[in-house]
Amino acid sequence: MTRSTTARRKAPNAKTASEARSTRDLLLDATGALMSEGNTTNVSFADISQRSGINSALIRYHFGSKQGLLEALIERDAGASYEGLDRLVGLAIPPEEKMRKHVYGIMRLYHQFPYLNRLLIELQSQSETEIARHISETYTRRAVNAQKAILEEGFASGAFRKVDPMIFHFALVGACDAIFHSRSALDHVFGVRQIDETLRDRFAEQVSEIVLAGLKPKAA
Amino acid sequence: MTRSTTARRKAPNAKTASEARSTRDLLLDATGALMSEGNTTNVSFADISQRSGINSALIRYHFGSKQGLLEALIERDAGASYEGLDRLVGLAIPPEEKMRKHVYGIMRLYHQFPYLNRLLIELQSQSETEIARHISETYTRRAVNAQKAILEEGFASGAFRKVDPMIFHFALVGACDAIFHSRSALDHVFGVRQIDETLRDRFAEQVSEIVLAGLKPKAA
Repeated sequence: MTRSTTARRKAPNAKTASEARSTRDLLLDATGALMSEGNTTNVSFADISQRSGINSALIRYHFGSKQGLLEALIERDAGASYEGLDRLVGLAIPPEEKMRKHVYGIMRLYHQFPYLNRLLIELQSQSETEIARHISETYTRRAVNAQKAILEEGFASGAFRKVDPMIFHFALVGACDAIFHSRSALDHVFGVRQIDETLRDRFAEQVSEIVLAGLKPKAA
Repeated sequence: MTRSTTARRKAPNAKTASEARSTRDLLLDATGALMSEGNTTNVSFADISQRSGINSALIRYHFGSKQGLLEALIERDAGASYEGLDRLVGLAIPPEEKMRKHVYGIMRLYHQFPYLNRLLIELQSQSETEIARHISETYTRRAVNAQKAILEEGFASGAFRKVDPMIFHFALVGACDAIFHSRSALDHVFGVRQIDETLRDRFAEQVSEIVLAGLKPKAA
């Protein structure tokens, strides 16, 4: 299920197209809300139908399949953030500042959509090759390339030491995702029931401090 | 389902007890293998029964429930590592060295049992409160306390700056887990099909270098 296929399913005339978009949005809203509340990506058509009040046959009509729905949800949630990341790479600010802003950006994204990273991993794991490849190229590779560009810029300017961008990518994403993924442990072990913006920013600050100090050349 | 309940289910005489242990082991082996191969924690009694050749009624007999089985799997996989972690904290070596060994220890554990962290999170999220609390206390809090002790020792000796142990815990676990959780992206984006011991150690080395540099006092 590619985005062009999804687009073709939209009705041709303006009024119907607008209704269709709104049904799509309601379905995506319901899916995202269920995933956030349950701290899971395991949400059924029946759950989505019940939550949205929309017949589950319409999910198939609008998204073709579960994977089509999940792909559309990722696009809705994260599309703009990846464009922001491309812009960040091109900004005329020091690479340390780019990396710090990048960490804050990931944290804001996962705070708003705590299921997002797991959804990306699942679509890459469980889908037919075509969707997995599309997701890998559109999101993971794009993030990897942006990080690579910032790391190279920092190495060239002497601000960073040389690190493996592959290892760096997974470690950074994992470090940023864990507090959202482990929400239940946060509650059981630390009594923290909710991650508010203050905690999110404290978390982003500590992770970016460790990462930036860890990237400094050893001689410095 | 607590461990004492599981223990009570074992037959009383020696021969039967040994047979029971072996059936238990076969069931745990099958569950772990299915989770490793599928890169998922979503494994059904039917899958386990088919893989092990053991009637699914016996899963219920030996473990009481799915959660009892998962709890036993965590205990089998990770029990010894947590004892090793307690010993590590008490060793007469510098805190930097303890932290480095700890990162390598987590990586070895996740390399061997790539589903382990997700399983811990799931049992803490989806179980009745009693199991969730037991898992949180036995594993998560124990790891947090060990990390806290190493961080405090490092702060006292001047080797580390002050960091929030809660944030540190989740970031470190997430950083170590991500490359195993994201195995599919590793394949799609980097063409890495398998994480061998060399890659695991390269990963542990880079993560521990970043973490240790990131923990250094700012004045240094």
